Amino acid sequence: MTEQMQRITLAGRPTGAPAPEHFGFETLDIPTPGEGEILVRVHYMSLDPYMRGRMDDGKSYAAPVPIGGPMEGGSVGEVIASNSSAFNAGDFAFGPFGWATHATANAKMCRKVDPSEGPITASLGVLGMPGFTGWYGLMEYGRPKAGETLVVAAATGPVGSMVGQVAKSLGLKTVGIAGGPEKCKMAVETFGFDACVDHRAFDDARSLRAAIKEACGGGIDIYFENVGGKVLEAVIPLMKPHGRIPICGMISWYNAGGLGAGASGEGITAPALWRNILVNFISVNGFIISNHWGDFPKFMKEIAPKVASGDIKVVEDIAEGLENAPAAFMGLLEGKNVGKQIVKVI
Amino acid sequence: MTEQMQRITLAGRPTGAPAPEHFGFETLDIPTPGEGEILVRVHYMSLDPYMRGRMDDGKSYAAPVPIGGPMEGGSVGEVIASNSSAFNAGDFAFGPFGWATHATANAKMCRKVDPSEGPITASLGVLGMPGFTGWYGLMEYGRPKAGETLVVAAATGPVGSMVGQVAKSLGLKTVGIAGGPEKCKMAVETFGFDACVDHRAFDDARSLRAAIKEACGGGIDIYFENVGGKVLEAVIPLMKPHGRIPICGMISWYNAGGLGAGASGEGITAPALWRNILVNFISVNGFIISNHWGDFPKFMKEIAPKVASGDIKVVEDIAEGLENAPAAFMGLLEGKNVGKQIVKVI
Repeated sequence: MTEQMQRITLAGRPTGAPAPEHFGFETLDIPTPGEGEILVRVHYMSLDPYMRGRMDDGKSYAAPVPIGGPMEGGSVGEVIASNSSAFNAGDFAFGPFGWATHATANAKMCRKVDPSEGPITASLGVLGMPGFTGWYGLMEYGRPKAGETLVVAAATGPVGSMVGQVAKSLGLKTVGIAGGPEKCKMAVETFGFDACVDHRAFDDARSLRAAIKEACGGGIDIYFENVGGKVLEAVIPLMKPHGRIPICGMISWYNAGGLGAGASGEGITAPALWRNILVNFISVNGFIISNHWGDFPKFMKEIAPKVASGDIKVVEDIAEGLENAPAAFMGLLEGKNVGKQIVKVI
Repeated sequence: MTEQMQRITLAGRPTGAPAPEHFGFETLDIPTPGEGEILVRVHYMSLDPYMRGRMDDGKSYAAPVPIGGPMEGGSVGEVIASNSSAFNAGDFAFGPFGWATHATANAKMCRKVDPSEGPITASLGVLGMPGFTGWYGLMEYGRPKAGETLVVAAATGPVGSMVGQVAKSLGLKTVGIAGGPEKCKMAVETFGFDACVDHRAFDDARSLRAAIKEACGGGIDIYFENVGGKVLEAVIPLMKPHGRIPICGMISWYNAGGLGAGASGEGITAPALWRNILVNFISVNGFIISNHWGDFPKFMKEIAPKVASGDIKVVEDIAEGLENAPAAFMGLLEGKNVGKQIVKVI
């Protein structure tokens, strides 16, 4: 009898927050790799906010996951069979293996991970897509200058913590925003933010704005946008002339009707947003990191040594077992994770 | 007895559209120019949408006009007295002379206009602030490439017509948006747009969107934003990946609560706007042309010969008499003008 594998599928499309019934769990035969493919036994899988978008069927930068199809995502594991000269059995690979114990993928879509260089989980976070997103967006669209002030939310997450640490190393004043006193303490003590504001301590955007303004000691030059919602509403009137806003995500709106339908109009209005961009000459750039993998080697060259030396800190939140991935994902969307959310599959 | 002059003041702040009672009319002695100043007899004054913003007291890039203070604006006229070596009596000057028959200004804030080179009204439109706004925003933030598709509203206005004509000369497909069949005909026949869509023919953003999409024959690479509102809502989902949106204004929202309070939230929502910027990797840049006068000589060098040769067309709408400026301005905000709105003062 062929060996079996497990994977998690999309059982239904959520209209708000995903719930257990939106996920399926299936057992099937382990596939054999086709020409140019590798077969991987997944050790760790990544959970990321963008996956919420893939559960909707609205127009976006990536096709939605079909109903009944496997949940997509990046994972790292051991190559157990290879039909590609680029990998040998026993190598470790990062690739688009999804929410599964095993998967095949075209070797060209995968990259080798060397376990001797550090924990392989780094390939999912600090030295993977989220860390690269933070570094690239900050450097390319944030255009940081020493002495400026930067604000980023989800400050203890893998994107926010990278943005804050790189900006700080470049001489910027960094103000994080995070949910709860524990995360705020970590933002300052572990990730070196100059200050961190607990957005949960403020019911409305106006009072949150006052706290952010005080923490910044004035206006904001760079707002690295990964949350939207109340934080955006609080921050936007604090932007200084010629400010920059790189946008890599808007997690607070992902569950509000989903990316597909256009989320709730509560809070800030489009005219107010547009007006602020105009009157302060703000530069806003949406980006998706998958368009920029050409710069990944540059990122690794600059950041990997800093991770190895401990100059850039890493915090991971590791759930145990593939079957717990849906719960961990639902928690991620509510900000329950502390640090990069990973699932240990093996 | 000293000679007298007339000027128009801000009598009250409108909450929606300005009305006659928001303007005052006063007669006073003609001032004498101070050190470094010139005194000008205004021949033509410009009316521009940005002036609506100055009537509000919200935070913006420029201080509001105080209640009772003279309405501000750019005008062109003859120097009748000079305390500056830069101007002689008899010269013509463009400067911040406001809504007035006469005004003094620091000579450094003025520039000489040579009546032998063409109509002096050009300094208010095609070769002045609006034309420069269109050219600069297109070239700097629109980053036009041959074969791309550009959309601009107020296509027969001084900004939109410059944007369309320059883009067309660079090999772009140009689609204008204008109010009414007369303006649409002018956009195509006079200003050379490939097509022009009459936004008044469509009640809602969805049907307007379908018409714009058909006129474009697909998606939009550059949306030059000067109107906001229904047009923005129609256009934004049509943006192609890596599209660019320079923002120089949003006239359709100026009267909807004013720039100060944040306008009505009807129509497109902030999350939908933000989401479109993200998923299509759009670059949005607000700008105000007064930050960029350093590039004005480059603009003049490139565009003035094309105006002189007739390669760039000019349409002006000239109201007669300072006392008719408020009515002309109210009409401008409703799109009643055809071409650059000017008031002949003398």
